[in-house]
Amino acid sequence: MADFWRSELDPERVMRLPVTHWQENTPGQREELLTVEEPFEIRLNGQSLAMIMRTPGNDVELALGFLLSEGIIRGYQDIDAIEIATDEDGLPLPNVVNVSLKTEATSSPASSAPFQRHFAVSASCGLCGKNSISDLLFSAPPLEPDQIHVSASTIYKLPTLLRSRQDVFEHTGGLHAAGLFTTEGELALLREDVGRHNAVDKLVGHGLLHGQFPFTTSILMVSGRTSFEILQKALLARIPCVVAISAPSSMAVELAERGGITLIGFLRSRSMNVYTHPERIVR
Amino acid sequence: MADFWRSELDPERVMRLPVTHWQENTPGQREELLTVEEPFEIRLNGQSLAMIMRTPGNDVELALGFLLSEGIIRGYQDIDAIEIATDEDGLPLPNVVNVSLKTEATSSPASSAPFQRHFAVSASCGLCGKNSISDLLFSAPPLEPDQIHVSASTIYKLPTLLRSRQDVFEHTGGLHAAGLFTTEGELALLREDVGRHNAVDKLVGHGLLHGQFPFTTSILMVSGRTSFEILQKALLARIPCVVAISAPSSMAVELAERGGITLIGFLRSRSMNVYTHPERIVR
Repeated sequence: MADFWRSELDPERVMRLPVTHWQENTPGQREELLTVEEPFEIRLNGQSLAMIMRTPGNDVELALGFLLSEGIIRGYQDIDAIEIATDEDGLPLPNVVNVSLKTEATSSPASSAPFQRHFAVSASCGLCGKNSISDLLFSAPPLEPDQIHVSASTIYKLPTLLRSRQDVFEHTGGLHAAGLFTTEGELALLREDVGRHNAVDKLVGHGLLHGQFPFTTSILMVSGRTSFEILQKALLARIPCVVAISAPSSMAVELAERGGITLIGFLRSRSMNVYTHPERIVR
Repeated sequence: MADFWRSELDPERVMRLPVTHWQENTPGQREELLTVEEPFEIRLNGQSLAMIMRTPGNDVELALGFLLSEGIIRGYQDIDAIEIATDEDGLPLPNVVNVSLKTEATSSPASSAPFQRHFAVSASCGLCGKNSISDLLFSAPPLEPDQIHVSASTIYKLPTLLRSRQDVFEHTGGLHAAGLFTTEGELALLREDVGRHNAVDKLVGHGLLHGQFPFTTSILMVSGRTSFEILQKALLARIPCVVAISAPSSMAVELAERGGITLIGFLRSRSMNVYTHPERIVR
């Protein structure tokens, strides 16, 4: 098998492949669609910074969102140039993006230790969750109380809206989706990726590129579970409300609570759990 | 909210939390269970190597499996000591494990560049998936053709067996599971974690610790999708058959094909797709 080729549906993101399909005790041949996954390298001022497995497309967004989530940039104003890298002969390297930072950004505290995680490695506490969150909130302060209100009935509609716009998912079943919604429940932006963190980074990067940042009045919806890292990205993008179909982890809840973010999980068509800051959800 | 406490059910891995539960347009209070997620640091010869968000428990397994998956060790024989780290006063740091390598292991090619990813950053190819896989197969050669056979009816039973043993999932809905099965369909080992890569690393680490490595006659089953990284871990652990409920990515299929691994996806109670090496699946 593995004799696959690009699908005409979406050649960058969907492949076709003959597979052995078993039904009961009978094997047969049929064709399936697969989500494309490829390695992607982010370079910072020409130096390799990170390697990410991702679904191709929106790579500049992904690079920008990743840099913001990692605390390396604080906004688009820190960027001098961002472009597809080239080899010695000047030919493009389509899976490599190079980001040049402005000099002042390069020397700022946020970027002095690129790709260090946000948790400080403290020998005295043994890396308890509490200290990790405190360190993060020191560089990205909690969201202030605001006047954002979303009705429960609006939240109930979000999964259907997200799903109806998920084009690749329908074909392959292989992608995570993340969407930015208005408080009226309109889908402003959707991104899909084999990595759920990547889908969120692409949304954030889009906002950075198009001057729609920070997202102080947006709702972020993700198709799976919520972890510490998803909430970390929301905090850095200043998103006041994060909604997921499935369960959050304990550290997602703790960061949402201390970061001033409304966190919703187990969202069904007529019910949901509001884990933190329920004051933004109204009848 | 976020006034949570450890659950008596499984205090290390489950927390209880009061939440606002909305049903239709009516909010009410109730208690929910959450999966514990905490940061975990792996140190190599006293130096910080990696920070991972994980569900506590089986931390030594996680550290060992991670080191194998990253190509830093080749087996337990490379380990001099592995233990919970301590602070200057000798007090334990429960979320930090220190691994000391034997001198010969430290200087071996596999460990000379710790925590480098397996894909080489080649300026001439721009990181195409083909080269990533070739590099990986250079250090971990493809599995040889073998006499492993598994009946389709055995494969169909695996999801129910895995689910019936998933204790934390039942309570919180927040965990990924990975299981090692015999070719007769017996569940030999189950691990759960907020991170699906971690669940696989814990299985691999268990095998390393208990002399059950490599897993040349085992089936690995994961609860979600299969990505390049899951297949990479299977290849390094020499697992001939990987089964998932959901879809694989294109690079998972390509690595399985070239690595000699049977990859199954979209597993239902009476049907499945066999993406690669279907010769191991029989009536």
